[in-house]
Amino acid sequence: SRSLNLAVIPGDGIGQEVVAEGLKVLSAVLPQDVKLETKEFDFGARRYHATGETLTDADLDALKAHDAILLGAIGDPSVPSGVLERGFLLKLRFAFDHHVNLRPSKLLPGVATPLAGQPEIDFVVVREGTEGPYTGNGGTIRKGTEHEVATEVSVNTAYGVERVVRDAFARAQARPRKKLTLVHKNNVLTFAGHLWTNIFNKVAAEYPEVTTDYLHVDAATIFLVTDPARFDVIVTDNLFGDIITDLAAAVSGGIGVAASGNINPSGDFPSMFEPVHGSAPDIAGQGKADPTATVLSVALLLRHLGYEDEAARIEDAVSADLGERGDLPARSTSEIGDTLAARVAG
Amino acid sequence: SRSLNLAVIPGDGIGQEVVAEGLKVLSAVLPQDVKLETKEFDFGARRYHATGETLTDADLDALKAHDAILLGAIGDPSVPSGVLERGFLLKLRFAFDHHVNLRPSKLLPGVATPLAGQPEIDFVVVREGTEGPYTGNGGTIRKGTEHEVATEVSVNTAYGVERVVRDAFARAQARPRKKLTLVHKNNVLTFAGHLWTNIFNKVAAEYPEVTTDYLHVDAATIFLVTDPARFDVIVTDNLFGDIITDLAAAVSGGIGVAASGNINPSGDFPSMFEPVHGSAPDIAGQGKADPTATVLSVALLLRHLGYEDEAARIEDAVSADLGERGDLPARSTSEIGDTLAARVAG
Ligand SMILES: CC(C)[C@H](C(=O)O)[C@@H](O)C(=O)O
Ligand SMILES: CC(C)[C@H](C(=O)O)[C@@H](O)C(=O)O
Repeated sequence: SRSLNLAVIPGDGIGQEVVAEGLKVLSAVLPQDVKLETKEFDFGARRYHATGETLTDADLDALKAHDAILLGAIGDPSVPSGVLERGFLLKLRFAFDHHVNLRPSKLLPGVATPLAGQPEIDFVVVREGTEGPYTGNGGTIRKGTEHEVATEVSVNTAYGVERVVRDAFARAQARPRKKLTLVHKNNVLTFAGHLWTNIFNKVAAEYPEVTTDYLHVDAATIFLVTDPARFDVIVTDNLFGDIITDLAAAVSGGIGVAASGNINPSGDFPSMFEPVHGSAPDIAGQGKADPTATVLSVALLLRHLGYEDEAARIEDAVSADLGERGDLPARSTSEIGDTLAARVAG
Repeated sequence: SRSLNLAVIPGDGIGQEVVAEGLKVLSAVLPQDVKLETKEFDFGARRYHATGETLTDADLDALKAHDAILLGAIGDPSVPSGVLERGFLLKLRFAFDHHVNLRPSKLLPGVATPLAGQPEIDFVVVREGTEGPYTGNGGTIRKGTEHEVATEVSVNTAYGVERVVRDAFARAQARPRKKLTLVHKNNVLTFAGHLWTNIFNKVAAEYPEVTTDYLHVDAATIFLVTDPARFDVIVTDNLFGDIITDLAAAVSGGIGVAASGNINPSGDFPSMFEPVHGSAPDIAGQGKADPTATVLSVALLLRHLGYEDEAARIEDAVSADLGERGDLPARSTSEIGDTLAARVAG
């Protein structure tokens, strides 16, 4: 009999609520012979306030012993900006070498979009997760004085860029349209831009069936609102990926339905799956949060672990549920979870 | 009698065509007693191919002797990415210390937007123009090998941040809504983010009437499509400003109508005004380009030089023209220019 050994990090704010529904749907969809074991971790604002810790070496060891990680949301206004982001979220991505940050965008039938004319949207962003301006390189001198200088260093390596570009080409090759767009700013960030563009072109030669193109990040934001149908797979750097995936989520149904995976394809460390949205403390504890993004993150988690059928069943259930929403009164977090669990089980 | 001594850089592609219309409207709107003198400069792809030069010290001296600069567009696929951007556009912004990059976004009646429901859009982005990741700091080692490392250094100084933040507060104070939003990514780029946030909060104390808020750049892109009416004035770093102003242009009528000013408020060097769009070589020379963004850039230029009435007359003419477009057959570049020139003269 098989087993799925899951680390669960509900985190802060609505994280608790949405993760509960994610687990509900996971239990409902898993084949009978798969033994699901979950271990909950209390990372986030409460633990930080209680102990001053965000993520220790012992925590990392404990997390490492799992097949995957499901995270709700981390962050609270009571913690200074950056402490939990750098001390937990980014620390985990870096420690477990989550270099493929996978963020699909699909506008499902019946889902509202701020764009006119209900365009077709079905693309996936492969965002680099361990380099770029996210490394924490840089510093400050003369802090707080009128002579302060603060730097942020974007670090880009051939090793780091090539592996994520290869991952993106493989994903593009596996999709019907087989199209890959590199998004960067190689006309201004010429050092990093040259590295990204060169490696992209080199790997492209190995994928003759994949159509490629290039967009500056500023132009990419234009096309995301004027012609999102032009995108199939996008590969981009860590910061550009952060920016365009929030925009992509906004145009394809909102961050209430945007899922993501922080993936280590080698399997040396567990991958982590989380909704793109944050902890939304303003609506926490009220049963108002939409658990759909977490449920879709569970689908990404299952696909990553080889449960393709189960992942597809979750996605179909979400599609069907979203398609019917227009006709229904608003439901609570757990009501949506119940509906989805019933659908995937049935 | 007064004089306006203008350096004109038509540049590449459609730059030639749109600048001609910008000058047509400028001549039509200027009071009789103002002597307009223009000097044309041949910067851009042709000059680069002919001489290898993009912008020499002698060029800078020649440009310096003018009250302002009007630029069409620089860039051509025949020139490697980055050469004209770094060698001309950015070199000029840095040499003339254009630290206030002003980019208004206003959705005018009758103008198409990709957003559903024709939202109200009327804000201005104050983008820092001489620091951040645009400084060209950084480099490459082991270029072309599998061990290549490329860095880009974002440089942020208290001096550079404070002057642009002050400019933005003054602009917010002068607008009816008096609201200023800082856009950054201070939860990840903590060194630069801390500097920006601290200075923003310090200057805010001097402007008690200005309402302030803060958004991460990724969240800002969401609001730009879901609730653009929430923005009045935005102040942000060079790269974030580059990205969000293209998105802002897209939602508020497209880059065909997006104007910008690269301003040195001290007046030590001439400021430069240019449409946000590029050289669009695919439609160059066909009379298809919309000169509206250039004409609106002329309005920004006039306002900068103190011709407030003339600037407003151009903006009114553009408003009226755009409002009537739906009923008219498509017009050529020069037909649009003629219409606008007639309107501002009348
Ligand atoms: C919270 C923050 C550190 C994070 C990021 O910038 O990557 C978030 O915006 C995301 O996109 O997952
Ligand atoms: C062409 C390029 C150098 C420029 C920039 O990145 O600033 C452009 O995108 C702009 O916004 O003016």
